[in-house]
Amino acid sequence: VPGPLAYLNGEFLPRSSATLSVEDRGFVFGDGVYEVWRVLGGQPFELDAHLARLKFGLGELRITPPDIAESDMFSNVAKRLLGASSLETGEATIYLEITRGAAPRTHQFPLTPTRPTVFAVANRFEPPEPLRARGARAITMPDVRWLRCDIKTIQLLPNVLAKQTAVEQGATEAIFIRDGVVTEGSHTNLFGVERGVIRTHPANNLILGGVTRSVVIDIARSLGIEVDETPIAGDRIGGLDEAFLVGTTTDVMPLVRVDEHTVGSGAPGPIAKQLQLALRERLDAIGGERRSPATIAS
Amino acid sequence: VPGPLAYLNGEFLPRSSATLSVEDRGFVFGDGVYEVWRVLGGQPFELDAHLARLKFGLGELRITPPDIAESDMFSNVAKRLLGASSLETGEATIYLEITRGAAPRTHQFPLTPTRPTVFAVANRFEPPEPLRARGARAITMPDVRWLRCDIKTIQLLPNVLAKQTAVEQGATEAIFIRDGVVTEGSHTNLFGVERGVIRTHPANNLILGGVTRSVVIDIARSLGIEVDETPIAGDRIGGLDEAFLVGTTTDVMPLVRVDEHTVGSGAPGPIAKQLQLALRERLDAIGGERRSPATIAS
Repeated sequence: VPGPLAYLNGEFLPRSSATLSVEDRGFVFGDGVYEVWRVLGGQPFELDAHLARLKFGLGELRITPPDIAESDMFSNVAKRLLGASSLETGEATIYLEITRGAAPRTHQFPLTPTRPTVFAVANRFEPPEPLRARGARAITMPDVRWLRCDIKTIQLLPNVLAKQTAVEQGATEAIFIRDGVVTEGSHTNLFGVERGVIRTHPANNLILGGVTRSVVIDIARSLGIEVDETPIAGDRIGGLDEAFLVGTTTDVMPLVRVDEHTVGSGAPGPIAKQLQLALRERLDAIGGERRSPATIAS
Repeated sequence: VPGPLAYLNGEFLPRSSATLSVEDRGFVFGDGVYEVWRVLGGQPFELDAHLARLKFGLGELRITPPDIAESDMFSNVAKRLLGASSLETGEATIYLEITRGAAPRTHQFPLTPTRPTVFAVANRFEPPEPLRARGARAITMPDVRWLRCDIKTIQLLPNVLAKQTAVEQGATEAIFIRDGVVTEGSHTNLFGVERGVIRTHPANNLILGGVTRSVVIDIARSLGIEVDETPIAGDRIGGLDEAFLVGTTTDVMPLVRVDEHTVGSGAPGPIAKQLQLALRERLDAIGGERRSPATIAS
């Protein structure tokens, strides 16, 4: 049994022996991007949408995309990582990070082009179904992040600090407020429902245009639910009929409390439940699996 | 001859064999802080001021300060790193980075507290005297950074991208403009002179309160030059009598051109020269060295 592997710069290594140069620009400057895929039955969900976002980010950072940004190459690496950890069945995630590589420290790009650092691992994933059934809590916090949140970079310290604050307050997520409106969560997008219409922040430079965000918007419209991509005022969260988080490992997570406000009836709302069910069907379709409705929403 | 060493988590290692876990939160989240010291004759300049800022940053990130944040311990590590590279004489820098450590990836802090990663290296340093003599060029760029620039974190991607843009345009530095005013450079503070008064952005959350910034303000005041810590309007840069950058490896660097504007006479100004001379004296005093005035400002 080989045990968990990491993919690092073209090699498959035992995870504990995958190490980086201290001069890696990811470590010294946060000079890199990443992606996380949901994997079902060995199949990455929305494989190409994540790779497209990855290439967009590499382009913005002006890092030449390495081979792994191509679908075939990524699929091969994913297959081997999943296989080594017996993750070809059930649920998993794949994490991929690409940095500008290792070079003597200067803010500007290295004079001699570096080989980008490519790191990937696969992990078992357990969807948070019990929490989904009862609904989650969130807090709001000022959005102090930079103005290129549309790039999925490893510049995640404000997200780390916000999420930690949420967890310490018994909440699942911190929702960022900038200039009086909700932008998104620390690692999720926020959707609200008012009079049957879904509202969420437009996919501009102030949020990460989530892959699952797009999927859920697509599902909602296909179900005849109107989606209005205009921001929700921070002081209107308490008055929403429903609120839910959306993300790669979050799926659709109903919020029942935000700060001191009860959202809607205080239980997961009908639109969130309907969207989660439809998203779950898409996830299961890729994995070729069937789950009983009982495990989806109790 | 041992050759260049790195200090990593309590050990002195050959630099090329100093490697990190791929799960280091510095690499995955940019979850860390750093400092750079100027070193003269084996003596770190403003040793305690840098350590104080380091501790402030560790406090804001809620990382328990490791031993190296103490003056005695830091001095011992510095001495060994400098000695191994024959840097006890002349000029050098020491780079120190501290991250939250390695742990399975979750945005929130690891449930089991991690040992912070501590990494330090020493490098030879050559002050940019030829450029100082003729004066440097800068460009202006929108300040898209986060709103906690007062913490010296490794979240440096916007700084990297700005500096690279400057270098590609033949400039030395990119000066950030936020809400119509100059905040600072990508790795320096900006000072302007108007009618004999120095202006620079106040040390709030929008800039890194530089150690050299404080030293230069102190020097200026001791020389009877008024220092007004109010921001300079972005559209006033072209009308300044003098402009100069200030930083740990920059000292006082006169700017003779910003974007398409010639600054003052187009040559290094008298206040910049005076401050550089006085700063150089303080630097030389710590190193116990004497330099001829010719190497200071031609």
